[in-house]
Amino acid sequence: MPLIDESARGFYVIPATPFTDDGAMDWTSTDRLMDFYLDCGCDGITILGMMGEAQKLSQEESAGFVARVLKRVGTRTPVVVGVTSAGFSLMGDLARHSMDLGAAGVMVAGVGALRTDDQIHGYFESVVKELGPEIPVVLQDFPQVNNVYLSPNLVNQLFADFVTLRVLKHEEMPGLRKISKVRGAEASGTRKRRISILVGNGGQHLMQELARGADGAMTGFGFPEGLVEIIRRWFAGDKESAEDLYDAYLPVIRHENQIGLGLALRKETLRRRGAIASARARAPGPSLDADDHAELTHLLDRLERAKARLGIALPPLRMAGE
Amino acid sequence: MPLIDESARGFYVIPATPFTDDGAMDWTSTDRLMDFYLDCGCDGITILGMMGEAQKLSQEESAGFVARVLKRVGTRTPVVVGVTSAGFSLMGDLARHSMDLGAAGVMVAGVGALRTDDQIHGYFESVVKELGPEIPVVLQDFPQVNNVYLSPNLVNQLFADFVTLRVLKHEEMPGLRKISKVRGAEASGTRKRRISILVGNGGQHLMQELARGADGAMTGFGFPEGLVEIIRRWFAGDKESAEDLYDAYLPVIRHENQIGLGLALRKETLRRRGAIASARARAPGPSLDADDHAELTHLLDRLERAKARLGIALPPLRMAGE
Amino acid sequence: MPLIDESARGFYVIPATPFTDDGAMDWTSTDRLMDFYLDCGCDGITILGMMGEAQKLSQEESAGFVARVLKRVGTRTPVVVGVTSAGFSLMGDLARHSMDLGAAGVMVAGVGALRTDDQIHGYFESVVKELGPEIPVVLQDFPQVNNVYLSPNLVNQLFADFVTLRVLKHEEMPGLRKISKVRGAEASGTRKRRISILVGNGGQHLMQELARGADGAMTGFGFPEGLVEIIRRWFAGDKESAEDLYDAYLPVIRHENQIGLGLALRKETLRRRGAIASARARAPGPSLDADDHAELTHLLDRLERAKARLGIALPPLRMAGE
Amino acid sequence: MPLIDESARGFYVIPATPFTDDGAMDWTSTDRLMDFYLDCGCDGITILGMMGEAQKLSQEESAGFVARVLKRVGTRTPVVVGVTSAGFSLMGDLARHSMDLGAAGVMVAGVGALRTDDQIHGYFESVVKELGPEIPVVLQDFPQVNNVYLSPNLVNQLFADFVTLRVLKHEEMPGLRKISKVRGAEASGTRKRRISILVGNGGQHLMQELARGADGAMTGFGFPEGLVEIIRRWFAGDKESAEDLYDAYLPVIRHENQIGLGLALRKETLRRRGAIASARARAPGPSLDADDHAELTHLLDRLERAKARLGIALPPLRMAGE
Repeated sequence: MPLIDESARGFYVIPATPFTDDGAMDWTSTDRLMDFYLDCGCDGITILGMMGEAQKLSQEESAGFVARVLKRVGTRTPVVVGVTSAGFSLMGDLARHSMDLGAAGVMVAGVGALRTDDQIHGYFESVVKELGPEIPVVLQDFPQVNNVYLSPNLVNQLFADFVTLRVLKHEEMPGLRKISKVRGAEASGTRKRRISILVGNGGQHLMQELARGADGAMTGFGFPEGLVEIIRRWFAGDKESAEDLYDAYLPVIRHENQIGLGLALRKETLRRRGAIASARARAPGPSLDADDHAELTHLLDRLERAKARLGIALPPLRMAGE
Repeated sequence: MPLIDESARGFYVIPATPFTDDGAMDWTSTDRLMDFYLDCGCDGITILGMMGEAQKLSQEESAGFVARVLKRVGTRTPVVVGVTSAGFSLMGDLARHSMDLGAAGVMVAGVGALRTDDQIHGYFESVVKELGPEIPVVLQDFPQVNNVYLSPNLVNQLFADFVTLRVLKHEEMPGLRKISKVRGAEASGTRKRRISILVGNGGQHLMQELARGADGAMTGFGFPEGLVEIIRRWFAGDKESAEDLYDAYLPVIRHENQIGLGLALRKETLRRRGAIASARARAPGPSLDADDHAELTHLLDRLERAKARLGIALPPLRMAGE
Repeated sequence: MPLIDESARGFYVIPATPFTDDGAMDWTSTDRLMDFYLDCGCDGITILGMMGEAQKLSQEESAGFVARVLKRVGTRTPVVVGVTSAGFSLMGDLARHSMDLGAAGVMVAGVGALRTDDQIHGYFESVVKELGPEIPVVLQDFPQVNNVYLSPNLVNQLFADFVTLRVLKHEEMPGLRKISKVRGAEASGTRKRRISILVGNGGQHLMQELARGADGAMTGFGFPEGLVEIIRRWFAGDKESAEDLYDAYLPVIRHENQIGLGLALRKETLRRRGAIASARARAPGPSLDADDHAELTHLLDRLERAKARLGIALPPLRMAGE
Repeated sequence: MPLIDESARGFYVIPATPFTDDGAMDWTSTDRLMDFYLDCGCDGITILGMMGEAQKLSQEESAGFVARVLKRVGTRTPVVVGVTSAGFSLMGDLARHSMDLGAAGVMVAGVGALRTDDQIHGYFESVVKELGPEIPVVLQDFPQVNNVYLSPNLVNQLFADFVTLRVLKHEEMPGLRKISKVRGAEASGTRKRRISILVGNGGQHLMQELARGADGAMTGFGFPEGLVEIIRRWFAGDKESAEDLYDAYLPVIRHENQIGLGLALRKETLRRRGAIASARARAPGPSLDADDHAELTHLLDRLERAKARLGIALPPLRMAGE
């Protein structure tokens, strides 16, 4: 399997981790979910992100999940593994295990009180050293959650200094100018090397982000085939039709982006679509009540009508009943 | 002028405070902006909110702005004044000044390290005591900015205990269940008194919020006539058409909700529409660069086309060139 | 071994987790450190706290450390195990493992975005349910680190509602009044049941905390025999001599309480005293430079002189060279 | 009056702002307090800091307080004025007013969401521009309160780039290495210009800070004559006697450093010493209950005995009864 690099483009989905109703790992749904993502046309899969409830898995479960996913996906699409940990040796162990089994790279976010540019630079210097020269790294920039803020200049410095950093998972909000400045550093020659920029946050500002130089998105979403198609149309030059399609999905994109509850909404959407058997999140975690279910149903019905109005030829992926 | 009370409904706009290009108070634009909001059909106006750059005005300027707005608006629509301050005596002074000139009420948010239910309850007890029995209060619940979290139970307790609290300006995100629980306390009799719930955050989840019992919105937005119309249709029972209209505005609603930059985007939209002369924000504050301008233009063009597709009969409010 | 309960009193030390210079678990030092703490007269030992770098151990290492400590300590003093985890099932697994091997109880802190009284109450309700009716719990109240603030009323409510909660590890700062209010709830009958209150933060306000009703301290400190003796004198009624001794230790207590660096200072102090072989902390973690070493040496020299002035009969525990 | 510059050394006290029991400005106590500080031998006075409840004064009261203090103090010692504000024009107005009346300089901290080195640099660039080339600036570095973190390298860059920055008020905790690195940049030639470093936080680590290159302290404290004497002894080369004296004060220094309550403790200490008439803080603000009073009395009694043991020749400043 080729490794992830600066040419990464398109839609990398961040999967939920499927559990059974009693909270055990659901290996059957794991396989089914991967097939679903591949059917959706995803350009890559990034497991064990925050959306994947990684911090509630035992280390044995994490290692097993990596193995199961890599076996199922094989060489069909690149798989990136989130390995962020409070300890560098734990991070390194999971990273090496994943690469040995065929992962395309790993994703790391800052952990702990990293406030200043120097602290953040020192942190990623140690990360890169721990991971060694062979493992390509997606740098996850997610200040809303980890309170680690990377300025555009610092991003450029990090990618100039550490060659194993290949992809920026960009999630600062607001963050549109950051994309312009990070991409602009290549045009101006401030940074010699191209990097890939994939955006998160459910793609809430995706069209603006693409216009400013993003290469796509890496995020959870209940309708991956939508983001796949939007990004494909964009890069095919069909920008207005891409944005029309985007606007059809926007009410759901925005609805899913409720921190905390979003996990439950996405798992339920995947369950309704037949991709996983149970929407259960591990405790402590969110679940949906009757109002939440009705609200979701209403929005998904409207999405179907909006897609119909646009005459979208997307394959009608199965939608299970509530 | 009648005071604000638990029957408050519809769209209360939170104005920008207009400055000239050199940062002085722009009294002419102040008048023009109020006329614009009234032309848009706003059901109320809430000045000196965070959107109004209140904290960058001198106390003399604030008092003058209150006087100017109240004189211009007269009895045409209720005017609420944001009076949140680090000191209760300063808060009280501005509140009494405003009520003397004809304000319909005041708005107060928590300030300082208010962490526990007891601390928050004690704070609003003191606020209500300082303001006295005559001044109706909008309680602003804005944890993303002030880090003061009010549980639904605490909201119910506050409104049960302090009769001058009349309106909840609801801005927690995610916060949909909170509306259900706060409104539900009336049906269940847990709280005897009805309260008004007006949502903020630009109305990013407005349709869900209305469905759960909100009475409308109190927020800044560059197209107040849109939110006015959406809320009117909703309460007229025309819910699907309200939501169709909402979805047309959603790309702009979402775009404006970029914390920090949003102020500049709204001021520029108001400037383009002829409502104010300058989009200048006071330092330290955001301004738009060429990319930001182009992005806004693109979204506003798409909004016009979306409205046209819906055959919207809204009066075509003037849009100045960039 | 008896379980920890509301009669817990004295000094419960929070150990460092000893590593070799290359970062592996140092089992020999683990034994030696436990002997050291027992020689110091500690009334209890709480392993795998934040001071113990628990989050940088693998689950296998944690389980092994629990087993090693419990085997070495035996029935000589109660051992409490920190089991806080992002997932309740992981927490439960470590708790059951520990109790099976003879632990006296477990310690749990809030994890995640727990803002309101209701959220915190719901969290500990789930914790207590997961742990079952047999495992006594130390509730760790450490808002400086986890941003979870418990009001005195909420603490009283939690201990009234959940009988397996036995000890409050109190670390809010400032927090003196909180002790008065939590303890006062027993005198007033607001809470029927006595609880134990043990303070953390290195004992920076220990004399005031004891005067307000604390039963002792549960914290890391390089000179456990000092806190043991101070607390014994206090409860023996020899309060002024206790405070004289406390003031002698205060410069070091205060010096150790530098968040982050404190871990390195404590490990180095334990190393100099011969209790562990290496002061190494796992990455990412602090280490001391030459200035830090000289500063520590200076303070420890002054401590020895201050103890000599007081004619302290404490056994001169071994102090290795730098 | 000479302006403050890089030679600033010794103890700059941060006064409380005296109010009457009903919360009005107490001009008589203002004069008395300034006389008290001058009697204590303070090397400078920094008014309208956070300790001075500046944010609860009206702009008219602030301007009046500046005028009153400058008139009373005259040329006897330099007076620095805290001018931090959410708006740069408000900051500039107070700064120019203060300098016109004879202030020695102004103090400014970061306000708002300043996360990255670039954001902080841009902020102070604008501050310095607004204040112009004539007004010397104390840069207040207080991340515990404003969440603005300045790395040593950034401090060095700021002082290299902006010549009107003269003094670093250093309050990061832990922050000992920061002093070494900032001072070390002068020895290594990284920064050409010497700067003054005065530490805050009540001087909780003062002896270590002086050893690492601090020029003194700028902080509130109820016994300014103590910090004056400690710093004088240190710079006279009498370092051990300085530290002996410091250790005598440490229990009170540490007790005062309870964020929030510390203001009430300091005002009460000043009241007992006859320096101000009322310990009242403006609402919302802390006040002492009976336990707090007794605790303070106990600590101040012990301080007197500790001073007596050291045979301290400090003039016995008047201590009023409770």
